[in-house]
Amino acid sequence: MAENFNEAERAAVYKAIMLRRDIRRQFEPTPIPRDVLARILSAAHHAGSVGFMQPWDFILVEDRETRQRVLESFLRERERSANFYEGERRELYLSLKLEGILESPLNLCVTCDRTRGGPHVLGRSTILETDLYSTCCAIQNLWLAGRVEGIGVGWVSIVDPSQLATILGLPDHVVPVAYLCLGYVREFPAAPELARAGWRQRLLLSELIHSNRWGNPADGKWE
Amino acid sequence: MAENFNEAERAAVYKAIMLRRDIRRQFEPTPIPRDVLARILSAAHHAGSVGFMQPWDFILVEDRETRQRVLESFLRERERSANFYEGERRELYLSLKLEGILESPLNLCVTCDRTRGGPHVLGRSTILETDLYSTCCAIQNLWLAGRVEGIGVGWVSIVDPSQLATILGLPDHVVPVAYLCLGYVREFPAAPELARAGWRQRLLLSELIHSNRWGNPADGKWE
Repeated sequence: MAENFNEAERAAVYKAIMLRRDIRRQFEPTPIPRDVLARILSAAHHAGSVGFMQPWDFILVEDRETRQRVLESFLRERERSANFYEGERRELYLSLKLEGILESPLNLCVTCDRTRGGPHVLGRSTILETDLYSTCCAIQNLWLAGRVEGIGVGWVSIVDPSQLATILGLPDHVVPVAYLCLGYVREFPAAPELARAGWRQRLLLSELIHSNRWGNPADGKWE
Repeated sequence: MAENFNEAERAAVYKAIMLRRDIRRQFEPTPIPRDVLARILSAAHHAGSVGFMQPWDFILVEDRETRQRVLESFLRERERSANFYEGERRELYLSLKLEGILESPLNLCVTCDRTRGGPHVLGRSTILETDLYSTCCAIQNLWLAGRVEGIGVGWVSIVDPSQLATILGLPDHVVPVAYLCLGYVREFPAAPELARAGWRQRLLLSELIHSNRWGNPADGKWE
């Protein structure tokens, strides 16, 4: 028998999905209790993975010096990226808060071991990247679990993966997929930070749905 | 103020995460009502994305002929992959049910438009793959939303992406990230299919957690 979800449970899951945010500010310094962290990591570990590969690892970064080095990599990359923008757009870019590396009580690097499960992982022979895809599914589980625990998660994507690999001592076959900042937050913003800042707005879902073939509109109401 | 989750809501989210399964059999032919499908796709659309890029599109594949062509691509790839295994392992591989392309009432291809948001997407200058990563986060939202609606989702990873792109008419800049089968299911298995079949078991979470640096064990209780 299918274990079903009642209306309240269904609503709770949609609530978590809709209220999840990428957090870069207002982290509380309060440490995350071990049992809460264990629940969040267990949520990640229960994502599906190609061939049940479970290619993920979790590196808990609390050490101040390590974080300082990651922050320096971020600052270099941010400066480099700023050159892509001009005028007001550049000013807006530089005014955005894009990471909480030192303010958050915990940094977490989620990696993907590309050799786990041996040379022939079931279902991974055609699309090699499916191990990375599985790792991202685990990250989304972690993000949602964090949200219901009152813990904000921010994904720092402006960081050089090869520098990160050096800082964290990753072997060659292990890729750093996400560098995350975690901590309790005073406030989860009502809308994504970049929408609030006027950087970019949410697209209409109905324009992203196709019927049978790319470019064929799917009729009906979607919003 | 942070909108908090009470204990029952928290439990519901963990329940969805733990009971989500990759489904390849026992799809009911019942069509998925439009409002339910809209909720599931909206859940996907509310994933975070690098630079609020929202690079995903959703192609609803109901057409029988299109599905037949995808199935043929799957069968070719499965045969090719079978050569990686020998003896009992090969027999087990060939006995596994790995897709529900024709049995499920709906196939869904989730794609990633690698040009969306222009040439310089905020936060994507260092790691170009972050758009694919965001798309996978959307897929995990969809998977969890499906679960609470009683709808099974199965990810068919054994399919040639270039053939899929041809079949679905994708432009060159759009990558098919996941080909999914969706439908109501009679039963969500208690454990992942590959664990039940004896193919591979769940790893110990505690062996996947490192402290500050790769290979440094993180003390304490994690399971």
